[in-house]
Amino acid sequence: MALNPKRTITELLELKALSDNGLGAQRVAFSPGWQKARKWFLDKVQEFPFHTEMDTAGNLWVKIQGQRPEELWIGGHLDSVPSGGWLDGAFDVLAGLEVLRTYTSVKPPITLCLVDWADEEGSRFGRSLFGSSAVSGSLKTEEIFSLKDASGLSLVEVLEANGLSADKVSEAAKLKNKAVAYLEVHIEQGPILEKLSVPLGVVLGTAGVERHRFIFRGQTNHSGSTPMWLRKDAFVGAARLVHFLRSVANRYEGVATAGCCELEPGIPTAIPGVCRLTIEERNLDKTNLEKMWEETLKEAQKIANEENLELEAEPLLRIDPVRFHPQLVELCKASILEVCSKVHLLGSGPLHDASEIAKAGIPTAMMFVQSKEGISHSPKEDSAIEHLEMAVIAFEKWVKKTIHWLLSKLPEKA
Amino acid sequence: MALNPKRTITELLELKALSDNGLGAQRVAFSPGWQKARKWFLDKVQEFPFHTEMDTAGNLWVKIQGQRPEELWIGGHLDSVPSGGWLDGAFDVLAGLEVLRTYTSVKPPITLCLVDWADEEGSRFGRSLFGSSAVSGSLKTEEIFSLKDASGLSLVEVLEANGLSADKVSEAAKLKNKAVAYLEVHIEQGPILEKLSVPLGVVLGTAGVERHRFIFRGQTNHSGSTPMWLRKDAFVGAARLVHFLRSVANRYEGVATAGCCELEPGIPTAIPGVCRLTIEERNLDKTNLEKMWEETLKEAQKIANEENLELEAEPLLRIDPVRFHPQLVELCKASILEVCSKVHLLGSGPLHDASEIAKAGIPTAMMFVQSKEGISHSPKEDSAIEHLEMAVIAFEKWVKKTIHWLLSKLPEKA
Repeated sequence: MALNPKRTITELLELKALSDNGLGAQRVAFSPGWQKARKWFLDKVQEFPFHTEMDTAGNLWVKIQGQRPEELWIGGHLDSVPSGGWLDGAFDVLAGLEVLRTYTSVKPPITLCLVDWADEEGSRFGRSLFGSSAVSGSLKTEEIFSLKDASGLSLVEVLEANGLSADKVSEAAKLKNKAVAYLEVHIEQGPILEKLSVPLGVVLGTAGVERHRFIFRGQTNHSGSTPMWLRKDAFVGAARLVHFLRSVANRYEGVATAGCCELEPGIPTAIPGVCRLTIEERNLDKTNLEKMWEETLKEAQKIANEENLELEAEPLLRIDPVRFHPQLVELCKASILEVCSKVHLLGSGPLHDASEIAKAGIPTAMMFVQSKEGISHSPKEDSAIEHLEMAVIAFEKWVKKTIHWLLSKLPEKA
Repeated sequence: MALNPKRTITELLELKALSDNGLGAQRVAFSPGWQKARKWFLDKVQEFPFHTEMDTAGNLWVKIQGQRPEELWIGGHLDSVPSGGWLDGAFDVLAGLEVLRTYTSVKPPITLCLVDWADEEGSRFGRSLFGSSAVSGSLKTEEIFSLKDASGLSLVEVLEANGLSADKVSEAAKLKNKAVAYLEVHIEQGPILEKLSVPLGVVLGTAGVERHRFIFRGQTNHSGSTPMWLRKDAFVGAARLVHFLRSVANRYEGVATAGCCELEPGIPTAIPGVCRLTIEERNLDKTNLEKMWEETLKEAQKIANEENLELEAEPLLRIDPVRFHPQLVELCKASILEVCSKVHLLGSGPLHDASEIAKAGIPTAMMFVQSKEGISHSPKEDSAIEHLEMAVIAFEKWVKKTIHWLLSKLPEKA
């Protein structure tokens, strides 16, 4: 069957009609909306002679047995955040399905697997990349047993209601033994490609994260009776640090954000005695992330000393950057350039299932499609139809080039 | 009767025992605790042949008719904030009583009035300087009729329960026609005298206030996917302004404080799209306050332009500075130097009843007593006993010097 990118758009709109309640896509993992989406997807798939299977972590696999047993994986996720957009995750799966359709009458040289990862978003239990981290082996069993949703329902119960056993989730890790590469196409969820007027980009990796809480402590005093030279203003210290973040981010080609700020007592007539900040830094390069973080801590301490404040810093989250496979990055770039005269190589701030698979040592890379205004996790999420169609075409080329490359490096068949 | 500063301390401790419930002084104006304190005070006063009277605004007057009808006022306030300290306001009244006692057997050359102002703190109805502004004439009748406490009880009802009629409050304004000067001794409520190791200070005036809400508006975006060069971070703009405040305050010898800060959406993974700040500036000098404020607005606009933000500034409060009378300031300084080798002249950040009386055109000044750590409006408020005693002595000298000065400039008796 010939590749038909317009079919992908039609299917995306079908899925949107199926799962959008007027406030956005309602396909939170393990919810009825998600189950409905998967059923719709399975109905599509079952028109073809593909093998389908749900693994012990709830990932849904669509497999075309190839001439060789080694598996090239492509994938995405049908789940969404509550009131999400029409593309995030679903585009990957449906673009993948379109690529699979090109093998309905030709057996692929190697086995081709399309995976719909379970609970990429982590919206309900706060644990994103659930299915892919079960496969990569990084999901800890104790974590599965400890998670509860906002209503107090445990993940264990919810898995059971979906026909899964918490005990067996980690068994999905052995699936990765047959994988020889993983490719993912995803919308950018950021503004860079749009700003550069480039429809498609190659993702170099996903950024590492340092997320910390800073607490500056000074002295609350009356704003009228305390002269400037006798103040210990926690907010002034914090403000100096917030202003510093841009310079350190630019110096190391990363990003840095202060997203939360709380003052005590937080009234107009009092000098803030306490300021709590969260600071998050992301970088594609591990050494640069470490340097950013080191300099930020050093600057915070210097400011605290100069402002007569006490400083506490408490880590909230640490994730290492993940670099995608250089050969797959090259092939992705070449594929894009066959459908478009421009390409841009960029890092991804958000994590993706691809980060998990890459961490497991499987050669991995991603393609990005331009997002309108970079809006994500919102019903306003959108991409130009022509860009989505170009992505389907480039993705198919990339899959074919990857199969070619894999064949060249795989051992002779036994 | 000879001046006895130790008696003032004893009486302050009596009052503390009477009105401290273990959490601090409970003498909120018009409350039973305040009524009890006033009754205790009246009992003290009625040992002597002083005339006492409550005016139509609830101010309590203790009067010694002098050889001339012109009145020198001295005063303070027995009311406290909820869970207040033992000195704020009460020290002024009891030091004044001690000065009055020196006239129990000698008729003063001019009439001497000690006033206990009603509701200086404004804790319950949010309208501070109630009684003194009724006398100065700045309290508006419509304001009186509009005020309610947290329980919904109107000021009108509360005044009635205290034997006062809201309709007649403004009649107290005519009292000021006989006043020729007003002197007040108050604890500093700030840290300056302590830092300088000076027991007593002369107050040059009370600072004017510019209090505004600033709203910076940028664009909320994902902290991971938005590079630094594409951000419109409202918090970065606000942080730059907060950092700027110290320089403008120092340049114009004022103070500037950002006491409140709210971010939207206020989560670690989002660039703040909105930041709401309150900024308050105070200055003893009207021109300097205007310049501070102008430069702050200009800087905020410059920052907003540079950071691609929109800016709104909304005034919350504006008060003009009040300068005390230069001759009374000189006499206060001279009086202090007779009891202590050091003196410091300073402005007051907080407002006082004296500000109202000065605004009404009556020559006015204040003396400050060192506060321990500048703590105010707290049960931890404290001053050294020896400093309080020195203040009583200096205050009496100041009253006598003021009478002498007034006599020199008053017209011949009719």
